[in-house]
Amino acid sequence: MGKSRFEAFSDGVIAIIITIMVLELKVPHGESIEALAPLLPVFLSYVLSFIYLGIYWNNHHHMLHACHQVTGPMLWANLHLLFWLSLIPFATGWMGENHFAASPSALYGVVLLMAAIAFWILQQLIIASQGRDSLLSKAVGCDWKGKTSPVLYLIAIATAFWSQWISQGLYVLVALVWLVPDRRIEKILGSKET
Amino acid sequence: MGKSRFEAFSDGVIAIIITIMVLELKVPHGESIEALAPLLPVFLSYVLSFIYLGIYWNNHHHMLHACHQVTGPMLWANLHLLFWLSLIPFATGWMGENHFAASPSALYGVVLLMAAIAFWILQQLIIASQGRDSLLSKAVGCDWKGKTSPVLYLIAIATAFWSQWISQGLYVLVALVWLVPDRRIEKILGSKET
Amino acid sequence: MGKSRFEAFSDGVIAIIITIMVLELKVPHGESIEALAPLLPVFLSYVLSFIYLGIYWNNHHHMLHACHQVTGPMLWANLHLLFWLSLIPFATGWMGENHFAASPSALYGVVLLMAAIAFWILQQLIIASQGRDSLLSKAVGCDWKGKTSPVLYLIAIATAFWSQWISQGLYVLVALVWLVPDRRIEKILGSKET
Amino acid sequence: MGKSRFEAFSDGVIAIIITIMVLELKVPHGESIEALAPLLPVFLSYVLSFIYLGIYWNNHHHMLHACHQVTGPMLWANLHLLFWLSLIPFATGWMGENHFAASPSALYGVVLLMAAIAFWILQQLIIASQGRDSLLSKAVGCDWKGKTSPVLYLIAIATAFWSQWISQGLYVLVALVWLVPDRRIEKILGSKET
Repeated sequence: MGKSRFEAFSDGVIAIIITIMVLELKVPHGESIEALAPLLPVFLSYVLSFIYLGIYWNNHHHMLHACHQVTGPMLWANLHLLFWLSLIPFATGWMGENHFAASPSALYGVVLLMAAIAFWILQQLIIASQGRDSLLSKAVGCDWKGKTSPVLYLIAIATAFWSQWISQGLYVLVALVWLVPDRRIEKILGSKET
Repeated sequence: MGKSRFEAFSDGVIAIIITIMVLELKVPHGESIEALAPLLPVFLSYVLSFIYLGIYWNNHHHMLHACHQVTGPMLWANLHLLFWLSLIPFATGWMGENHFAASPSALYGVVLLMAAIAFWILQQLIIASQGRDSLLSKAVGCDWKGKTSPVLYLIAIATAFWSQWISQGLYVLVALVWLVPDRRIEKILGSKET
Repeated sequence: MGKSRFEAFSDGVIAIIITIMVLELKVPHGESIEALAPLLPVFLSYVLSFIYLGIYWNNHHHMLHACHQVTGPMLWANLHLLFWLSLIPFATGWMGENHFAASPSALYGVVLLMAAIAFWILQQLIIASQGRDSLLSKAVGCDWKGKTSPVLYLIAIATAFWSQWISQGLYVLVALVWLVPDRRIEKILGSKET
Repeated sequence: MGKSRFEAFSDGVIAIIITIMVLELKVPHGESIEALAPLLPVFLSYVLSFIYLGIYWNNHHHMLHACHQVTGPMLWANLHLLFWLSLIPFATGWMGENHFAASPSALYGVVLLMAAIAFWILQQLIIASQGRDSLLSKAVGCDWKGKTSPVLYLIAIATAFWSQWISQGLYVLVALVWLVPDRRIEKILGSKET
């Protein structure tokens, strides 16, 4: 089964998700700078989600780079991942319009958690299809980022009802952890080429 | 005529259709979890349509994998298929907002039926262009799924006006039937390579 | 300059245009079949525009198949074409919501006319870059379709203010003329391969 | 890391941005030509932004043509560029709906300025990864367009509060400067091939 079409479809969906999020930034009616003020939380939540989707695209890109064959279950695991990512614009819009209130902040965490689980499932399927000694398996290694993130999301969901700023802080923290470039796969691939 | 551009265009349209559906999930105004409750039927119909579009993309992917040359009629049969798929977000939104009422449930079935017919026409054109002994012809075989689905859609359309839950059940059933991975084409292709 | 990226970008834009048009089909509030009735003109104008965009994609596909090198002016001529195509959803929506009234019908013709001119400019640039004896030049030949269409659009624009049904008839006629598969380029390319 | 997927994702995002802008052109309710009049400023700002996005796509295309390897920082610099480009529809819509008022005109300049800076960062990363003697480095040369544009944007932002027509004139001027085809990279690449 063709990997390129699999990648192209994923890219297309992620590109659309990342772009339609901006439609939540509704053009304000006033013409003064002050008219923009109510949009600030929507804008900030847009920035956060843009970074998360960038991280997913980036990691998806890396993971498939180390994958050679796409199977039926992978197609569905990928659609499962895209499903949860497609809910990010909704969760982002709800969170932004309600100024990071408790329930929307918790829902945002739930969507991120489900996307993380979906990513993990896809990763396991790819590793399984390639064998434990495969490049990807080595590259992923102990996968501390992948294991820590869901835990932090769970804490963020729970604390959202107590203090939404802690939960927002956790979302930003996880994004920063992933933003630090993940050189694992690059390194392993690089070392093999050498 | 280039198969890759044909695939890329189809992927693009399906990726956009699958993603703009989420725009029907309008951000609610309240900030409590209860504000999400009225969205539940819209969400459920979104999940169902997401799976249907995933199935179409998957089957389209498989079918074209076994196709070597794209002709003019295939281009138009493909656009015909994409036309009916493009109506799925509308039918989904109408069905979800009206809590699976009779008429919207029937319309949903009509759109699925027309898409199934369009897919069958495209499949026949590809088989015809490749000969009865082609891989795709063998792979499709008796095509019981392709033959049963339209019948089930017809029953679902008819029963929608009597009990919409039977018709919803039939839509879910057809989706499940297709979700079971279709290894036919993979098998035939695999056996030939061996 | 890479032809594949040029094609991919054009495909992407056309795929999005063809799909966002369906957003004009707003989900009706009632749940009865009658609630769909006011949408009929919007639906019919959607079908017409879907066919026109399909024709453009198809012809664009064929034309670039016979093109070997993409130059700077071609990039801009292509963006010019995409600009006019991007106005089709707006013209379609206005025409559909006003039940094919005079002004919207005329505007629809203006957008089609400008797109036809933009396509002709792109075609001339490609032919010029490849020489008068090129495959595309022969394939296009006397280009009676390309020459007749703008004239028919002009008549349709003028008659829209007198009888919008004549102008709608002309739009359908031009679409039908183009729907008849254009085997010119295929034939010439085919004959050369032989 | 694959350059093709990097390009495809960028193309996808730019294609969607350029197309969803047209959604700001809301279908008017009246059916007379006069109903279009209030849309004129929205239309003009759409044309301007379409040209800017066309320029960015074009320059992005050229720049990557001279790039051979995509690194992690480039991926993020590219996402940073796409982020600012994704705000163009919002800035365009606000500017158009307020008939080029002062604040929206200034915000439009800010978004263009940030996009220009993001483009410059990406360009520097690519040049750095390829060495000062690389093709791209020579092709970019003194980069007077890239250096002048931010200065003109800054002037346009400042003058928007005094006279928005000067600032609009500057936006048009910068677009015209870039519209003049940038043959630098083509020339250098061409001369090397010779």
